[in-house]
Amino acid sequence: MCELLGMSANVPTDICFSFTGLVQRGGGTGPHKDGWGITFYEGKGCRTFKDPQPSFNSPIAKLVQDYPIKSCSVVAHIRQANRGKVALENTHPFTRELWGRNWTYAHNGQLKGHRSLETGPFRPIGETDSEQAFCWLLHKLTQRYPRTPSNMQAVFRYITELAGQLREKGVFNMLLSDGRYVMAFCSTNLYWITRRAPFGVAKLLDQDVEIDFQEETTLNDVVTVIATQPLTGNETWHKIAPGESELFCLGERVV
Amino acid sequence: MCELLGMSANVPTDICFSFTGLVQRGGGTGPHKDGWGITFYEGKGCRTFKDPQPSFNSPIAKLVQDYPIKSCSVVAHIRQANRGKVALENTHPFTRELWGRNWTYAHNGQLKGHRSLETGPFRPIGETDSEQAFCWLLHKLTQRYPRTPSNMQAVFRYITELAGQLREKGVFNMLLSDGRYVMAFCSTNLYWITRRAPFGVAKLLDQDVEIDFQEETTLNDVVTVIATQPLTGNETWHKIAPGESELFCLGERVV
Repeated sequence: MCELLGMSANVPTDICFSFTGLVQRGGGTGPHKDGWGITFYEGKGCRTFKDPQPSFNSPIAKLVQDYPIKSCSVVAHIRQANRGKVALENTHPFTRELWGRNWTYAHNGQLKGHRSLETGPFRPIGETDSEQAFCWLLHKLTQRYPRTPSNMQAVFRYITELAGQLREKGVFNMLLSDGRYVMAFCSTNLYWITRRAPFGVAKLLDQDVEIDFQEETTLNDVVTVIATQPLTGNETWHKIAPGESELFCLGERVV
Repeated sequence: MCELLGMSANVPTDICFSFTGLVQRGGGTGPHKDGWGITFYEGKGCRTFKDPQPSFNSPIAKLVQDYPIKSCSVVAHIRQANRGKVALENTHPFTRELWGRNWTYAHNGQLKGHRSLETGPFRPIGETDSEQAFCWLLHKLTQRYPRTPSNMQAVFRYITELAGQLREKGVFNMLLSDGRYVMAFCSTNLYWITRRAPFGVAKLLDQDVEIDFQEETTLNDVVTVIATQPLTGNETWHKIAPGESELFCLGERVV
């Protein structure tokens, strides 16, 4: 199993606090020692920091914790390998271009029969079930929408339908972003929380760290965090129902 | 104009020394202050560190200099923007999947009439002439080779032909790698050097740094470095003739 972390915000926000909680689970308080990765969007561009080494003692993870990269859309993952060896090409998140945008994807779970998923021109590079499922999703999307679609919410409804088909093959918790939207599909476990004024103090479950968001934010900030398990102990996280998805844009839930 | 840096080696080698020379040109000793990026291959996987900020005072560039990431194939770039604003999506290198591998590309120069280059299903994400030329190259390659080609040297000869066509539109110095091969196409300036036993001492032109490669290497190591301008003052670099390319695999020149 792996852990997912996502963020959607209306102003560029750093994710240092939540990432600090996540990396502890990468070989520290959790068993997810087989690599980690995080993708930050800045406009249409994105950059990914990843390492096939455990996150809790990775110098690159340390940089990401210490150097506040501000972004409106983030997708992160820490991995406990099941399918596919521990290698950089098997390390999430995966990013591919579709409709002239970077699409970034991370998966938690395990799929059976993933080799039968047709991926068309989107060829997997590594050996994971996860990347094959991502390529299949992209292939299905280009079949349904050969041209850039204008109604993105309809696209995400279709992705929910496709994710439901993948869930029939096993466990398929997913984060997906095109830089504007961050989508979370829940197969078993996925939680979210939206923080907005009045901001309070949050305390990480995995490490003795507190943050007073009021000191870090302005009155208009809206920041949603999505995670496999709640990262803080003194806030109420919403669980996404299995088989359902949530879509966020600029921090707000899109209903 | 921009500067390019590439490496091909037969054992995973760090590029800290050469990168230290390059980053000084990113706003320090050179005018290339509009971002930088470096891609390291590890097997079929690769990871890119990039920043739209100047390299000479970037904390991420500092990490890359201090943390020896070992790789057999590296492509790096520092940018002085001409076409396309200073933004992450316009920051080289660019990586796309082709034939189930990561292809990484960086360009130095400027092209006219790049908007007429057909890119088929490879859609540019940013606004640079460089990325459009890369997408055009990939599109041309899939047209000529719809299936994974077996004769890669023939593929690189075809890429040289295509690069020659791009050169007719302006200046087109390029580095391109699929993780195994590193190709350098020279339009105006591109130099390379192959280091092997007996290794000596090299001295960076841009900073008061010396390295004794003998202390860092074994007798069997073969390491080729490619750069827009020679990075060291006490070694002989080979200039690639304008309009020609060189291909390297595991440190050795492929003739």
